[in-house]
Amino acid sequence: MEQTPIIIVNVKTYLESTGPRAVAMARLMGTLASETKASLVIAVQPSDISACVALGRLPVYAQHIDPMPPGSCTGWVLPEAVKAAGAVGTLINHSEHRLRLADIDACITRANAVGLTSVVCTNNVATSKAAAGLLPSMIAIEPPELIGGDISVTTADPRIVSDSVKAVKSVAPGVKVLCGAGVKTGEDVTAAGRLGADGVLLASGVVKAKDQEKVLRDLIAGLR
Amino acid sequence: MEQTPIIIVNVKTYLESTGPRAVAMARLMGTLASETKASLVIAVQPSDISACVALGRLPVYAQHIDPMPPGSCTGWVLPEAVKAAGAVGTLINHSEHRLRLADIDACITRANAVGLTSVVCTNNVATSKAAAGLLPSMIAIEPPELIGGDISVTTADPRIVSDSVKAVKSVAPGVKVLCGAGVKTGEDVTAAGRLGADGVLLASGVVKAKDQEKVLRDLIAGLR
Amino acid sequence: MEQTPIIIVNVKTYLESTGPRAVAMARLMGTLASETKASLVIAVQPSDISACVALGRLPVYAQHIDPMPPGSCTGWVLPEAVKAAGAVGTLINHSEHRLRLADIDACITRANAVGLTSVVCTNNVATSKAAAGLLPSMIAIEPPELIGGDISVTTADPRIVSDSVKAVKSVAPGVKVLCGAGVKTGEDVTAAGRLGADGVLLASGVVKAKDQEKVLRDLIAGLR
Amino acid sequence: MEQTPIIIVNVKTYLESTGPRAVAMARLMGTLASETKASLVIAVQPSDISACVALGRLPVYAQHIDPMPPGSCTGWVLPEAVKAAGAVGTLINHSEHRLRLADIDACITRANAVGLTSVVCTNNVATSKAAAGLLPSMIAIEPPELIGGDISVTTADPRIVSDSVKAVKSVAPGVKVLCGAGVKTGEDVTAAGRLGADGVLLASGVVKAKDQEKVLRDLIAGLR
Repeated sequence: MEQTPIIIVNVKTYLESTGPRAVAMARLMGTLASETKASLVIAVQPSDISACVALGRLPVYAQHIDPMPPGSCTGWVLPEAVKAAGAVGTLINHSEHRLRLADIDACITRANAVGLTSVVCTNNVATSKAAAGLLPSMIAIEPPELIGGDISVTTADPRIVSDSVKAVKSVAPGVKVLCGAGVKTGEDVTAAGRLGADGVLLASGVVKAKDQEKVLRDLIAGLR
Repeated sequence: MEQTPIIIVNVKTYLESTGPRAVAMARLMGTLASETKASLVIAVQPSDISACVALGRLPVYAQHIDPMPPGSCTGWVLPEAVKAAGAVGTLINHSEHRLRLADIDACITRANAVGLTSVVCTNNVATSKAAAGLLPSMIAIEPPELIGGDISVTTADPRIVSDSVKAVKSVAPGVKVLCGAGVKTGEDVTAAGRLGADGVLLASGVVKAKDQEKVLRDLIAGLR
Repeated sequence: MEQTPIIIVNVKTYLESTGPRAVAMARLMGTLASETKASLVIAVQPSDISACVALGRLPVYAQHIDPMPPGSCTGWVLPEAVKAAGAVGTLINHSEHRLRLADIDACITRANAVGLTSVVCTNNVATSKAAAGLLPSMIAIEPPELIGGDISVTTADPRIVSDSVKAVKSVAPGVKVLCGAGVKTGEDVTAAGRLGADGVLLASGVVKAKDQEKVLRDLIAGLR
Repeated sequence: MEQTPIIIVNVKTYLESTGPRAVAMARLMGTLASETKASLVIAVQPSDISACVALGRLPVYAQHIDPMPPGSCTGWVLPEAVKAAGAVGTLINHSEHRLRLADIDACITRANAVGLTSVVCTNNVATSKAAAGLLPSMIAIEPPELIGGDISVTTADPRIVSDSVKAVKSVAPGVKVLCGAGVKTGEDVTAAGRLGADGVLLASGVVKAKDQEKVLRDLIAGLR
């Protein structure tokens, strides 16, 4: 598993981070990771995994896998396929791509089987506690109403972070907990750490920034 | 909440238990419940709830609710609607109707809000433990590969029952645990109790029986 | 099949038309249908079908069916079940409950098999033309962006109605075409007829009206 | 659009055609396409598109796209993303990945907008006729019960092919019609042409063959 504290940048399906522009983002993040020794991860669309991996130095995650087995599953995202493309981990059950409980469990089992770090996204304390019972590598709590917004979850609802950390650790002490939604600055990252989180998951805060390098440097500074 | 130990008969969408034949099943179960004082519940299709409720004496559950709010949700099963028809509880996330994790959580919240007992179905120990984090009224563990089969889960895989009981109680001691899949006899019910379960959930074992009354009497005898 | 021109009131999952209040709406509509000889239909939640049917005189539709066969389909809406409860037709693929193409086809086949009038909802001219290839009883074109709004589709986008009528009739001349979205007045009903539609499908215009009887009388007057 | 008659090989999610083995299949097909001038296409998983495209000479399709717009659609397959990776077309609504009617329509619109050939899969004559109303580039009729089997649709149910061709052409004369399911030999390809089809869509017949080159040469010979 990747080191914590960690910053995972999910580039979603923004045109600003699709194709060559996903690779550009991975290059920038890889350079900063090498320079600062911070633990950074980029989560990209499946068609962009191999090109981002080819740069080296930065762990690349898939944004989603399906729990299907190899074979007759046309058009689904096979864990073995993202692994073959070089991904080392995957988001599961992102707010924009919710899965059935039994499928989250199956995705984690499949991720373990092929050697992918599993990051299950959740929306509140109860689902974070539930996800802990499934023993993923990490859980990322993101209140849907704050995603893509201007106020960090660590400011808008700090209790949901600290309560999720407590709930998860009460069920599965070894599972890491990240937080996300509205995270944009180093201060937000520091606040996440103070609330017990092992890192942050963010997207628009980096992808939509006018100066992506400046934002990333600020976020990394917040890890200290 | 209904008393435990409990026997919940899910009549599914069998023609043998649709419309007037659902009502006949509810009548038979109501008579036996009155006579034996056993805690019996029937889970029926939404269009059959009110007629089964009208018989009196037997608690009627819905087989499913959707987490949607009142309003513009054409064709979805509103918790308020099944409650208005007289249901006092509902299955959630049945093996044949799996839901997303966030929706299971929302269904339980909605069931609590309108006053419905919530029975979340699960497929293994991990998802049972996960469901416990959501604090439903009951959890019913049913290994999918044994559902509709000839061998009771209590014989084929007793460990999945006792381990689910342990896992659920470790997270939420107040949540009741049922088991199901292949349950057909009083012996199976007794075995479920010995494994720590608070009752059974079954379907074909009763609905498809040649002599439904005989099977129900045998199941009830197993509660002792 | 019900007579055209027709007015179908879909009461959705509004609390104002759930349980006893669905029955009250059916009673009012039944009285007006008897008095005016207009062809009126109410589409209700499955748990309210039997009580609305029990009133007599007004055809009752389901808001949705699933294409599943009888048997092991817990929590799905069986065509046989809504038929047993007394429904004579059903909406299929409503804007708030979209279905897969193959499932729309299967729902129509199942509706025919059990004797339910099938009304397939569509969102534009292309999908209306596509639906015509499946030979439902009726097609109801409703632009999603106008549903629940204040301006009738017949005013906001009359071309989508007349073009849908033309497209459907070019593929299947016997299939009736309704329109909906924002329909509220007798004028809207008359406009629909002028555009070639065989009736209207509406919801909030009636359910949310302060004086439901007045609105219904106005709508009926527009049929002339 | 690619030339017809055409042979599209969908490599599904077989391990035999994932990662480097997808590239090997694309290389073999590219060589045969150059040598024979036959119109061949490979449809691969999204994570394998760019590596297959990098070989040159063989058009590469995606197996699936989602109708979502760019932006906040984590884990969905963006048309722009598969295009950026070099795909020139896509399957839509494959038997193993069915879509809602409105989403098939939206996928075709999105495919057109980004410049992808659209191949909509269907399961019977009615859905083929329906799909024609949406004006995709091609329609591939594949009876689900014959997919992956040993008998070609052209032998087992030739009428479904010729009737689909007739139905599609009656609605949209410019839309090409392919057939698939059980197709394995040049004879099957020839039979498809005789039934009016513009080519075939196949998977296991090639991927699972002991001698893939031999099977491909036989299929290509059947195009004459």
